Amino acid sequence: MITCKAAVAEEAKKELVVKEVTVGPPQAGEVRVKILYTGVCHTDEYTRSGLDPEGLFPSILGHEGAGIVESIGEGVTSLEVGDHVVPLYIPQCRDCEFCNSSKTNLCGKIRSTQGIGVMPDGTPRFKDKDGNELYHFMGTSTFCQYTVCPEISLAKVNKEAPLDKICLLGCGITTGYGAVINTLKIEEGSTVAVIGLGGVGLAAIMGAHKSKASKIIAVDINPGKFERAILFGATDTLNPLEQKGKEMSELIFEMTDGVGVDYSIECVGTPHLMKQSFLSTKPNGGASCVIGVAAAGQTIDLSSEEVMGREWTGSAFGGTKSRDQVPELVDDYMKGDIKVDEFITHNFPLDDINDAFHAMHEGKCIRAIVKMFDDE
Amino acid sequence: MITCKAAVAEEAKKELVVKEVTVGPPQAGEVRVKILYTGVCHTDEYTRSGLDPEGLFPSILGHEGAGIVESIGEGVTSLEVGDHVVPLYIPQCRDCEFCNSSKTNLCGKIRSTQGIGVMPDGTPRFKDKDGNELYHFMGTSTFCQYTVCPEISLAKVNKEAPLDKICLLGCGITTGYGAVINTLKIEEGSTVAVIGLGGVGLAAIMGAHKSKASKIIAVDINPGKFERAILFGATDTLNPLEQKGKEMSELIFEMTDGVGVDYSIECVGTPHLMKQSFLSTKPNGGASCVIGVAAAGQTIDLSSEEVMGREWTGSAFGGTKSRDQVPELVDDYMKGDIKVDEFITHNFPLDDINDAFHAMHEGKCIRAIVKMFDDE
Ligand SMILES: NC(=O)c1ccc[n+]([C@@H]2O[C@H](COP(=O)([O-])OP(=O)(O)OC[C@H]3O[C@@H](n4cnc5c(N)ncnc54)[C@H](O)[C@@H]3O)[C@@H](O)[C@H]2O)c1
Ligand SMILES: NC(=O)c1ccc[n+]([C@@H]2O[C@H](COP(=O)([O-])OP(=O)(O)OC[C@H]3O[C@@H](n4cnc5c(N)ncnc54)[C@H](O)[C@@H]3O)[C@@H](O)[C@H]2O)c1
Ligand SMILES: [Zn+2]
Ligand SMILES: [Zn+2]
Ligand SMILES: [Zn+2]
Ligand SMILES: [Zn+2]
Repeated sequence: MITCKAAVAEEAKKELVVKEVTVGPPQAGEVRVKILYTGVCHTDEYTRSGLDPEGLFPSILGHEGAGIVESIGEGVTSLEVGDHVVPLYIPQCRDCEFCNSSKTNLCGKIRSTQGIGVMPDGTPRFKDKDGNELYHFMGTSTFCQYTVCPEISLAKVNKEAPLDKICLLGCGITTGYGAVINTLKIEEGSTVAVIGLGGVGLAAIMGAHKSKASKIIAVDINPGKFERAILFGATDTLNPLEQKGKEMSELIFEMTDGVGVDYSIECVGTPHLMKQSFLSTKPNGGASCVIGVAAAGQTIDLSSEEVMGREWTGSAFGGTKSRDQVPELVDDYMKGDIKVDEFITHNFPLDDINDAFHAMHEGKCIRAIVKMFDDE
Repeated sequence: MITCKAAVAEEAKKELVVKEVTVGPPQAGEVRVKILYTGVCHTDEYTRSGLDPEGLFPSILGHEGAGIVESIGEGVTSLEVGDHVVPLYIPQCRDCEFCNSSKTNLCGKIRSTQGIGVMPDGTPRFKDKDGNELYHFMGTSTFCQYTVCPEISLAKVNKEAPLDKICLLGCGITTGYGAVINTLKIEEGSTVAVIGLGGVGLAAIMGAHKSKASKIIAVDINPGKFERAILFGATDTLNPLEQKGKEMSELIFEMTDGVGVDYSIECVGTPHLMKQSFLSTKPNGGASCVIGVAAAGQTIDLSSEEVMGREWTGSAFGGTKSRDQVPELVDDYMKGDIKVDEFITHNFPLDDINDAFHAMHEGKCIRAIVKMFDDE
């Protein structure tokens, strides 16, 4: 049993509380990880804010972390103490029907227990100092100095890679980049619109640039986002608010000689934009991907005529086969093939983790990194 | 100028009127075709009934025909008098951006004029005997003994093939079969649900069977449709009306060990079914195709959560590159590789063409063939 610090989400809507918790030893098939750094993502905020109807409290949030294996449970063979790892909210068991399919990255192995905040055996490893159990979150709970994950939820990565950077490969960057590379598989010369220029959208632009798209239209209503979008490879920018009275899809048609884009990617989480993003694509063979997560209960309405000749898809974690591909992305980063540092705008110590949430709301933050230990 | 018989749609909602019309000579890039046989499809009925907000009257409907080239206009090089042809409501110019893309079959060349019922030069070739112009329909107007089509809207087919059968390759069969083969490209061993067992749905089943799907669930609320579905290759049947209180998607999950199907295809035209069809697929990598055309203004609502990990697409004319692939389908039919005769349940002379529409409404007709000339 380890006693350490965690940022606990005690109740919906409340700020996180940094306090002492205990972390039980890893059980069979589990691994305990010392988390050194974690990013803060919108999905953490979605649950903290109480919008997620499936949110559980009290719990330890966080799913964009990196750390070092502290101990392993019985039967764990793919990891050993000292390995560097990135926790994965989409595991890869390499055994189930879905892991064996090239069409999905959504492993089915531990989905049901992960969704209800416990380890695969049905119990949590976290307790507060009064002995009350705390729920896990997304199978990762990286807002704790030590966390326990199933072995299949950890990617073993290059030990040379800086953990304060590659933690971001645990969600946002991999999601946006992967949606382009794995889900849409865009071809050289394609035209692309990326809607929303947060970490996810910038990563999508990076993917489109890497795929040699001929035109990359970066769309945001915050013009402060355009400079960085151009740094990542955008060729054109669009602020729909500057041209009132026209829908975004109309504007994108105007920017593409009236034909629409080959691909569009929604990285905001608003149904109206998801529809506009879809309608921005070519009626003849266009494809649109939804990454943004809309609030529960909100829907997108499309007519059969609008969908005729187009393709619509949703991408979770960028369609990434997590244990296989996250280590590859870490290596790509080390070789200078993908950017990571450029996503980081803020750094905070664990004690100030709530400031990372505030920064997110201010619109100037792409990604904030939280340092879990003062002394390292 | 040829004087001949046509079934004219004089006004929305009215029965067609078989009467004399004149058909002008083919202009540059056009071809005049003697139509020997035509099928009757729901899209004809959709326009006749007045539901299509873009329907134009008076006009000559029909888009599932086969005939023989009677004369050619200036500059026509790919066809000569006597060639056997199937008119195509989706042309293939082999020259535009979309014809050059492997991702779409929707040629952009003459779309605007086709949509407003005239030839590419902006005028119609049809007049009634008082000299009033009649609109073309879908660039085909096969309910006339002679029709004029752009050269790019005609597939030249094997002269040995019976025109009273292969006319059906001008729409329904090619649409359902192609949605499986070209649009979804389903793999051997896949599980498939086909919703609606009219001509389009049966052709989709034929495609799934040809692709060696391991399970093909045929869904209809008319149990009279199941026998033929099994003949075409269905392995399971489902009548959702027999299990009230459960949605179709739930029932399909039950029939697939709780995982859903790899692919589903909606061949009815009802938004609620399109959504249920989509939700019948695996949340992990399932793909759903819409073929049915919903009434104008009706929409399908989906949440971002439902689309995460799935793919949704619409297929027009089965994604078929029309001039290239329709002749291949004719050859496949001649070799016995695809069924065509088995779709035909009714035959009528042109004078009784309204009976073909009545038969369609009775639910016993898969496809009716109308013979355009009494004497041949
Ligand atoms: N599918 C997944 O696996 C997955 C993973 C991570 C994040 N997400 C989701 O992706 C979305 C984006 O995440 P992020 O971290 O980049 O968020 P972010 O808040 O950093 O970025 C969103 C951007 O959208 C812009 N925006 C807001 N309204 C807009 C509008 N009307 N038009 C154009 N732009 C607008 C904002 O200005 C901002 O730049 C969120 O919904 C998040 O929940 C999904
Ligand atoms: N996308 C295209 O290119 C294209 C081309 C041709 C036809 N279509 C469309 O495809 C659809 C099917 O055409 P078709 O000629 O096979 O029609 P059809 O009327 O012959 O067949 C429809 C079938 O759906 C069944 N059905 C009705 N309600 C149902 C329900 N609630 N659940 C299950 N089954 C139900 C009917 O019993 C019937 O068997 C139509 O909407 C047509 O307009 C589209
Ligand atoms: Zn995230
Ligand atoms: Zn798995
Ligand atoms: Zn048709
Ligand atoms: Zn073309």
